[in-house]
Amino acid sequence: MSKQSALADAFRQTVYKVPGHGDLVVQNLRSVLEQIDGDLESDRYGSGKIIEDFQDKMAAYLGKEKAVFLPSGTMAQQIALRIWCDQRGVAKVAYHPLAHLEIHEQDALRELHHIEPVLLADKDSLIRLKDVENMPEDVSCLLLELPQREIGGQLPSYEELEAISQYCRERGIKLHMDGARLFEITPYYGRSAAEISSLFDSVYVSFYKGIGGIAGAILAGDADFVETSKIWKRRHGGDLISLYPYILTADYYFQQRVDKMQQYHEDAKSLAGLYNDCHRITTRPVEPVSNMFHVHIDVPKEQLEPLLIQCYAETGIGLTSYLVEAGESSCAYEVSVGDRYALLPKERLTGALQWLDQKLKES
Amino acid sequence: MSKQSALADAFRQTVYKVPGHGDLVVQNLRSVLEQIDGDLESDRYGSGKIIEDFQDKMAAYLGKEKAVFLPSGTMAQQIALRIWCDQRGVAKVAYHPLAHLEIHEQDALRELHHIEPVLLADKDSLIRLKDVENMPEDVSCLLLELPQREIGGQLPSYEELEAISQYCRERGIKLHMDGARLFEITPYYGRSAAEISSLFDSVYVSFYKGIGGIAGAILAGDADFVETSKIWKRRHGGDLISLYPYILTADYYFQQRVDKMQQYHEDAKSLAGLYNDCHRITTRPVEPVSNMFHVHIDVPKEQLEPLLIQCYAETGIGLTSYLVEAGESSCAYEVSVGDRYALLPKERLTGALQWLDQKLKES
Repeated sequence: MSKQSALADAFRQTVYKVPGHGDLVVQNLRSVLEQIDGDLESDRYGSGKIIEDFQDKMAAYLGKEKAVFLPSGTMAQQIALRIWCDQRGVAKVAYHPLAHLEIHEQDALRELHHIEPVLLADKDSLIRLKDVENMPEDVSCLLLELPQREIGGQLPSYEELEAISQYCRERGIKLHMDGARLFEITPYYGRSAAEISSLFDSVYVSFYKGIGGIAGAILAGDADFVETSKIWKRRHGGDLISLYPYILTADYYFQQRVDKMQQYHEDAKSLAGLYNDCHRITTRPVEPVSNMFHVHIDVPKEQLEPLLIQCYAETGIGLTSYLVEAGESSCAYEVSVGDRYALLPKERLTGALQWLDQKLKES
Repeated sequence: MSKQSALADAFRQTVYKVPGHGDLVVQNLRSVLEQIDGDLESDRYGSGKIIEDFQDKMAAYLGKEKAVFLPSGTMAQQIALRIWCDQRGVAKVAYHPLAHLEIHEQDALRELHHIEPVLLADKDSLIRLKDVENMPEDVSCLLLELPQREIGGQLPSYEELEAISQYCRERGIKLHMDGARLFEITPYYGRSAAEISSLFDSVYVSFYKGIGGIAGAILAGDADFVETSKIWKRRHGGDLISLYPYILTADYYFQQRVDKMQQYHEDAKSLAGLYNDCHRITTRPVEPVSNMFHVHIDVPKEQLEPLLIQCYAETGIGLTSYLVEAGESSCAYEVSVGDRYALLPKERLTGALQWLDQKLKES
């Protein structure tokens, strides 16, 4: 079994955990299957009612002609970028320095697809219209991640997004959305997923972030694009004989949670407010635009870790299971608000943060 | 919903189906999960007890240092070939003209990995030692599929396999096994999977053929090879946050069925014997070396299809759900013997084949 840190252990033992929907356990799949007719036929290599119905449903939800279900977002986005590069005949794309493709995929875009990325904007900032205006005009595709996860989940204004979209359209540059957290930003923009997606040529969405499924992704676009993406799905080794464990759970939890995104956003704003009232703590962004944000605490990791462990033991409230070092003497962690927050006794949460505030004030 | 052929419909309605373990339905997963503790934690991006234990178990079973669980065999084999090519610095491999990579993967080896295959042997024959001796000596890897599925599931003698292995070792050519049906051939060779695997540098096995899982593959080899394969798993988009639906079912059905391979083989020989007693029918191979074989019927498809539909309706026995044209006036289908065969009243099976024999004799 993988080793757990002391902080993860302490977090695990708390009565109330603040982030997320719940533990990642087998029960999440089991409780979905208990509601499904056992005679329901498996999908087969991309065909069959389970997968076709879900693809149609998500294409409609995203306002695109077609959609394909893929095992992962990593696969979905490489495929999208490859198709747009092949179409324009230029193996060059643009994205943020902290894009998933750049930092979490072992250089796959270069190693598998021989595509060269152009990095836009400073790593601590959003991609702005001026960055787009200054990028080489021969890029085949610009990828925008909404919200930009690695900087706490930030968003440009909708007007700026429209301007970027228009700029790209006028120059024949395809615009692809890393919409891993698209569902989560619809309340902030006050627009439907389809409306936001209409600014993009291709859209990837994930089912294990705000939706809380087990794994899996949808890639949507026009019919030709999706047809070609199925060829690449096969090439990547993603055209499994059966994807139904992921599809059935994605569909189930989508229905359960997609209408709760407004609530998660409100809860994230409340929680960030509580954090920002503490000494030495700031959230990024200060006011979340989705269900997620980053917590920055101006204390070195080796000091903060025992403090949090003590906090969890005394209050029964689990704030985070991990810390990363951020700068010389501070640390950070990500918070995604989900179903757990509503079940949390708020006075106990407030108590835990007051306990922490007091310790941070003294230290 | 996908359209089904009339033959598939008729097959579906039979009381007794001859090939396979059972229908591909959601119940196959549900019945496994019902036996699992719901609190069992998900694997996470390749870590955790579920995935690590199963990888260790399969590495031991295959007699290799390490193993990695992957969503598909397509992914497993491309990764193996890429690693061996990178290691030798030559992007050239050798395999059979009907290898899975050549006919079922949309040219992925070229499109994703820029690897050029050398095709060995005639497409209707096994790769023999002489083919290997005549191949270019600068290939990085030779892939052998045991048994060679597209020609009915045929095998070289074990001595020839040993000679091929020795030839490759002496020349620094890596030998990779497409062992999608490795479990199924251990009775014929009378050797353990580990013993057969010891002739190979890397081995892929599948869990939804004879084992009857839902999907998923293991790739095994030495520790360095497997470590590198995990990087490629990430690049391919196969490093899902959770693979447990596939792993738990692979493990469960492995335990249920791996010791039944001898029975499946015996049953396949019996069934092939019954087919070969019929007019105009021959199996390939005549005597199966695993649980699988191909049935060739010397009647045009448009004549055979209504005959089979009538046969199913009159006898209640389902022989196949599909036919492919094989040559100008004959057709073929694949049979894989599984759990269903033992439950089949043999006099009804014999009756159905006698009915068919009589019709074929008259036609």
